[in-house]
Amino acid sequence: MASAESRAAPTALPDTASLRQRFRGRLLTEPADLEPFLVDWRRRYFGRAIAVAMPDSTDEVAAVVRWCAEHRVAVVPQGGNTGMSGAATPDDSGRSLVLSLARLKGVRAVDTVNNSITVEAGCTLAEVRAAAGSAGRLFPLSLPSEGSCTIGGNLATNAGGVAVLRYGNARELCLGLEVVTADGEIWHGLRGLRKDNTGYDLRDLFVGSEGTLGVITAATLKLYPQPAAQITAMAAVDDPHAALRLLELAQSAVGSSLTAFELMSDLCIELVTKHFPDHRRPFAQPAPYYVLLEISDSESEQHANATFEALMERAHEAGVARDTVVATSGAQSRALWALRELVSEAQALTGKNIKHDISVPISSIGDFVERTNAQLEQRFPGIRMVVFGHLGDGNLHYNVSPPADRCDREHEAEFLGLQPAINRVTHDAVVAFEGSISAEHGLGQLRRDESARYKSQVEMALMRRVKQALDPLGIMNPGKVLPPG
Amino acid sequence: MASAESRAAPTALPDTASLRQRFRGRLLTEPADLEPFLVDWRRRYFGRAIAVAMPDSTDEVAAVVRWCAEHRVAVVPQGGNTGMSGAATPDDSGRSLVLSLARLKGVRAVDTVNNSITVEAGCTLAEVRAAAGSAGRLFPLSLPSEGSCTIGGNLATNAGGVAVLRYGNARELCLGLEVVTADGEIWHGLRGLRKDNTGYDLRDLFVGSEGTLGVITAATLKLYPQPAAQITAMAAVDDPHAALRLLELAQSAVGSSLTAFELMSDLCIELVTKHFPDHRRPFAQPAPYYVLLEISDSESEQHANATFEALMERAHEAGVARDTVVATSGAQSRALWALRELVSEAQALTGKNIKHDISVPISSIGDFVERTNAQLEQRFPGIRMVVFGHLGDGNLHYNVSPPADRCDREHEAEFLGLQPAINRVTHDAVVAFEGSISAEHGLGQLRRDESARYKSQVEMALMRRVKQALDPLGIMNPGKVLPPG
Repeated sequence: MASAESRAAPTALPDTASLRQRFRGRLLTEPADLEPFLVDWRRRYFGRAIAVAMPDSTDEVAAVVRWCAEHRVAVVPQGGNTGMSGAATPDDSGRSLVLSLARLKGVRAVDTVNNSITVEAGCTLAEVRAAAGSAGRLFPLSLPSEGSCTIGGNLATNAGGVAVLRYGNARELCLGLEVVTADGEIWHGLRGLRKDNTGYDLRDLFVGSEGTLGVITAATLKLYPQPAAQITAMAAVDDPHAALRLLELAQSAVGSSLTAFELMSDLCIELVTKHFPDHRRPFAQPAPYYVLLEISDSESEQHANATFEALMERAHEAGVARDTVVATSGAQSRALWALRELVSEAQALTGKNIKHDISVPISSIGDFVERTNAQLEQRFPGIRMVVFGHLGDGNLHYNVSPPADRCDREHEAEFLGLQPAINRVTHDAVVAFEGSISAEHGLGQLRRDESARYKSQVEMALMRRVKQALDPLGIMNPGKVLPPG
Repeated sequence: MASAESRAAPTALPDTASLRQRFRGRLLTEPADLEPFLVDWRRRYFGRAIAVAMPDSTDEVAAVVRWCAEHRVAVVPQGGNTGMSGAATPDDSGRSLVLSLARLKGVRAVDTVNNSITVEAGCTLAEVRAAAGSAGRLFPLSLPSEGSCTIGGNLATNAGGVAVLRYGNARELCLGLEVVTADGEIWHGLRGLRKDNTGYDLRDLFVGSEGTLGVITAATLKLYPQPAAQITAMAAVDDPHAALRLLELAQSAVGSSLTAFELMSDLCIELVTKHFPDHRRPFAQPAPYYVLLEISDSESEQHANATFEALMERAHEAGVARDTVVATSGAQSRALWALRELVSEAQALTGKNIKHDISVPISSIGDFVERTNAQLEQRFPGIRMVVFGHLGDGNLHYNVSPPADRCDREHEAEFLGLQPAINRVTHDAVVAFEGSISAEHGLGQLRRDESARYKSQVEMALMRRVKQALDPLGIMNPGKVLPPG
């Protein structure tokens, strides 16, 4: 650990020429070149940096981090820069270096018997999925940004997505890691093992730590057999309580073949069909809520279809579903999925909205939505909740839009001024239901202070001790996850 | 954190009377009462303690730990005392307190919609499984010692067992924890969430840390729907390579319905049928290896049976299996399972043996067994490898028995004298295949130094930093997991 003396930060900015000599990859120092790395894609956070380093190998990543440690320069790891919480954007101190992993693109190994793949941090999620697919295997992590987001970022933020119900978060898909520590050393933890009880779980400490404890440079990930068939269905239901009854039916009837269980309120469908008129409502009669289900079957399309038909019949009989449709073609499946996938975009086209990424115990989703809707509607008359998300994981993107007649630019600032109050009502409700205010997007800068407000002193102290232990100089992505000081 | 001054250990032993006043649970101080807590069940480790504290609540656990911190007394958490590596036995310094969690027996909540259960650390695994079963749910962790081992111990050692292939280790079954920290504070981390990205993964740091970072007092665990049918089958195969081809066939044909895939060498069957004559060989013709498979089907027994028959037919056609049998009744299933479950006992009845608990990437199992067998047979002529285990997880209990004519007591010491050399050959091979020398039993005292020998300095330094951060006084189960100093 660093002594008190060595922790005093030098005041002069180091000359990047000395960094240039440390590695062969790209080093960007021109302001125009830096610019895209200094703002997050949602354009909410803007920072400054002395340079962007783009090393070509793990050794070079280590060399860059050692240079940063020597000069007390903050290291801000960045993958595809698609994060939702500003974790990959430097602060405005000007004492940061953006460490882009984008050039670490190697697929180091694919093992179809061990069902594992070893990839470097800069591979996009789409590239990892494609490499798995070429070997006849499935890498199940699936996100809208898969063409841009990198696997390093997915692991650093413990990404979720639509297949978590069956396959877990990025954390559950990770067998081993290679990490450059805050000292610029390399931890070779790329194990492809299903079982290893030889000490503390360092892997899971780095996963989800958003670059604040070290830099993930490569990972060994789980693969799965590709399913023989994937079938999609949709059900119209009265409310989230009914959706939960359908979930229970589905899980008991099809077990782990159930790979997606997504909820949408009618407003979601309304916005999608309004802004994307090629997409049609799934049912003649609108319903308050809709559930999108997916079965991945290891047997056959025929078996998957029969399973779904039987399940939907039971749902009808039990009075759980008002109406149901089972896709009979790939095109129909894609059309149903599009309704779900276009919600965010349709909402953005409607105007600014206030986003939440919350989870509660699955059994509390119905009560949470009911009570929080009521509280918000009472306090902010006319506002509209765009409720959708991964019901099977207890995770909702519980977003809030202005009243229908106040979606214009003129009322934007007024509405966004309500954000702190709307967040408070929503997050207080989440915490009352023993939930999480950041289910899958991470804390970054966006939820850092809000999270600290809700966590116990004991938990904050434990996290600070871990941070201090692994990053005693405080150079790893400072100001993210934990509030300063 | 403790200052350097406060870390100096007082030399006099504290009076347990002051501890007596701290909590209402049982406090044992009579040597005869202490005795069963001071030796592990395999009778390999013997320790000393000033007392055994058996608190009745989490608050009382915290009070005991605070007393230990004040007096610099080592805390040795103990559950059912069924560990394989001596992690729950105190050292012989006499400055330890055994903290038994056996009286924390509450089932705090069962939630069938969230599919979760919250239990206190002292519940036995059988009690947790029964509580889940009463609610119509499955808690899938399954171990031979389930009647005695406690869920707190299962989590502290990240227990494995026969259902890992489908459901994961204890770690993967844990949603949240309640932990008493080394300061005697309570971390309320009993979340029942599938997604929570609000900071460092403290849960997984405590899971598998064998009581060296804190004391697990309660946990929220995942439940699953009970399968509609469970069917067992056995296949005779030429070697582990053929077993791996069968695994690949099975996983692609039945996906996650495959809940067990266990390997046994012919010697295992020979020992079991010799010592338990009620049990018969599964096939008329012996084969070098056998695989036990289990399907858990969410549909029906009929469907499970048809699936198995189809799979076994494919295995025959592909030349992977010499012979197969599918159990047609519960009694037949139990008889097949008994062959697997009695291996350890049969081996013990044969005489002392040298046990290993290793894992390698699944794809390397065949080569590992082949090469390690050859090396050991060459170096120690006549010794016999009792190879069995969880092939689907890459985890073998690769045990070594004396030559058939040297199993008597007379040759016992001579054989056990070979242990360091046999361990070295085996573990060097494991490490050459990028495996783990403790797949599911943990390090405790047994594998602590051996593990440290194989791990990199970087990994050991990271683990020591974590230990120092969470247990600055070094009172939590010292001498386990990490070598002293």
